[in-house]
Amino acid sequence: MKHNKIKNKTNFIHGFNALKTTLTNKPFLIEKVYLADSRNDSKIQEIKTKLLKEKIKFVIISNQEISNIIQNDKHQGFLASISWSILKKENELKTDLQDLKNSKVLILDSIQDPRNLGACLRSALAFGVDAVILNRDGTAPINEYTFKASVGAVLGLDIYEVTNLSRSIEALKKIDYWVIGLDGYSDQIISSDNLPNKIAIVLGSEGSGIRKLVKRNCDHLFKIPIAREVESLNISVAAGIALYEFSK
Amino acid sequence: MKHNKIKNKTNFIHGFNALKTTLTNKPFLIEKVYLADSRNDSKIQEIKTKLLKEKIKFVIISNQEISNIIQNDKHQGFLASISWSILKKENELKTDLQDLKNSKVLILDSIQDPRNLGACLRSALAFGVDAVILNRDGTAPINEYTFKASVGAVLGLDIYEVTNLSRSIEALKKIDYWVIGLDGYSDQIISSDNLPNKIAIVLGSEGSGIRKLVKRNCDHLFKIPIAREVESLNISVAAGIALYEFSK
Repeated sequence: MKHNKIKNKTNFIHGFNALKTTLTNKPFLIEKVYLADSRNDSKIQEIKTKLLKEKIKFVIISNQEISNIIQNDKHQGFLASISWSILKKENELKTDLQDLKNSKVLILDSIQDPRNLGACLRSALAFGVDAVILNRDGTAPINEYTFKASVGAVLGLDIYEVTNLSRSIEALKKIDYWVIGLDGYSDQIISSDNLPNKIAIVLGSEGSGIRKLVKRNCDHLFKIPIAREVESLNISVAAGIALYEFSK
Repeated sequence: MKHNKIKNKTNFIHGFNALKTTLTNKPFLIEKVYLADSRNDSKIQEIKTKLLKEKIKFVIISNQEISNIIQNDKHQGFLASISWSILKKENELKTDLQDLKNSKVLILDSIQDPRNLGACLRSALAFGVDAVILNRDGTAPINEYTFKASVGAVLGLDIYEVTNLSRSIEALKKIDYWVIGLDGYSDQIISSDNLPNKIAIVLGSEGSGIRKLVKRNCDHLFKIPIAREVESLNISVAAGIALYEFSK
């Protein structure tokens, strides 16, 4: 299955941790909550207290009814419909980032798999990235799989959805970002020596790396040195290593 | 679903790349090959040539029959039954590793998800690990998902299946390995400074990290420094970062 658009559609999250994280960080994303009538413990009390505080509507239904809504039974009795209108727009980039003195931005070019995308976002939050930029056409949707793999990091990040990555890269360069692409074919080994204060790290898709035009816009290309018998690393592993190296 | 045993059972791999990799690296694992009668191109010729060379039996059946065998249609007309008897035994560890002067070993304690396991194996091969040690009880099976996520790295590695990780760690110490655990609660930040020539890196499960007894057997515990708001990294990302850092 190929995903061709990030969808800002209504979607579901389920499970205690996912609901608690969302309620704590971005309660305004929650549209409606469904709780199982079979639960009567401290976890459901904790959620109910938060829901009342945030004035979010909830309904109590049977465990089976919740399973029917999302077609699986791994919800632990907690389900919420979510409006994924969390993505920021291209024109907000400059305003948001121009005054930063030290900054890391992560640019993901056409990541295809929601789980890989989620794992990249988890690392982005872990290593203090100020913005994640995704191309609207050609990137996996931010859905419940992305959310789960990100362990909620989706909610803690500023994620920008843009139509043209090269144009965003140009915009970043104008506000003094140095743009570094990860490319297995580069002969420069990745290093944090002499790193400028504001950097944008570009990673390409699982199959084919950074697209040509985007690559041409990078100031610098680095590779992670790996054994010749392995063609590449998993994209979220490569992103993690780059973010780790550049966080030193 | 919880996986409680690495299963050395017959299993399937599918798709051109998976079959080609296996035929090239470990043809002896292949039991029987099924090819779709609908294919008549250079890829099927390439596979047939290799099969004849390796004297491996194949049958030509319909595309639909192949789909029926594995209950999915993503096989591209290539299917093979595989004997996953690729795992080495605990008693081979010492013989295999004792004469190495420089060496990295990866020890994975109770990894639950086959995809995470596969991604760890891919990185292990990429960073030149000499051995991967898994605990037999409590680790995800090496199945088609592991294989796919490893992008065939399963076949390029020496993977040891042991019953008692602490005992294996003791065995490694006796042949001069320094055992380093990754632990978010350590106050030592990961670093490749003053690293001995022979190291074993221990990573714990997705949920709960390295088990207590195993942790107690480590010579040293390091953490990867991450933002406080993120509890941990994805296990395969953490493994990748550790292998990268210790490969410097």
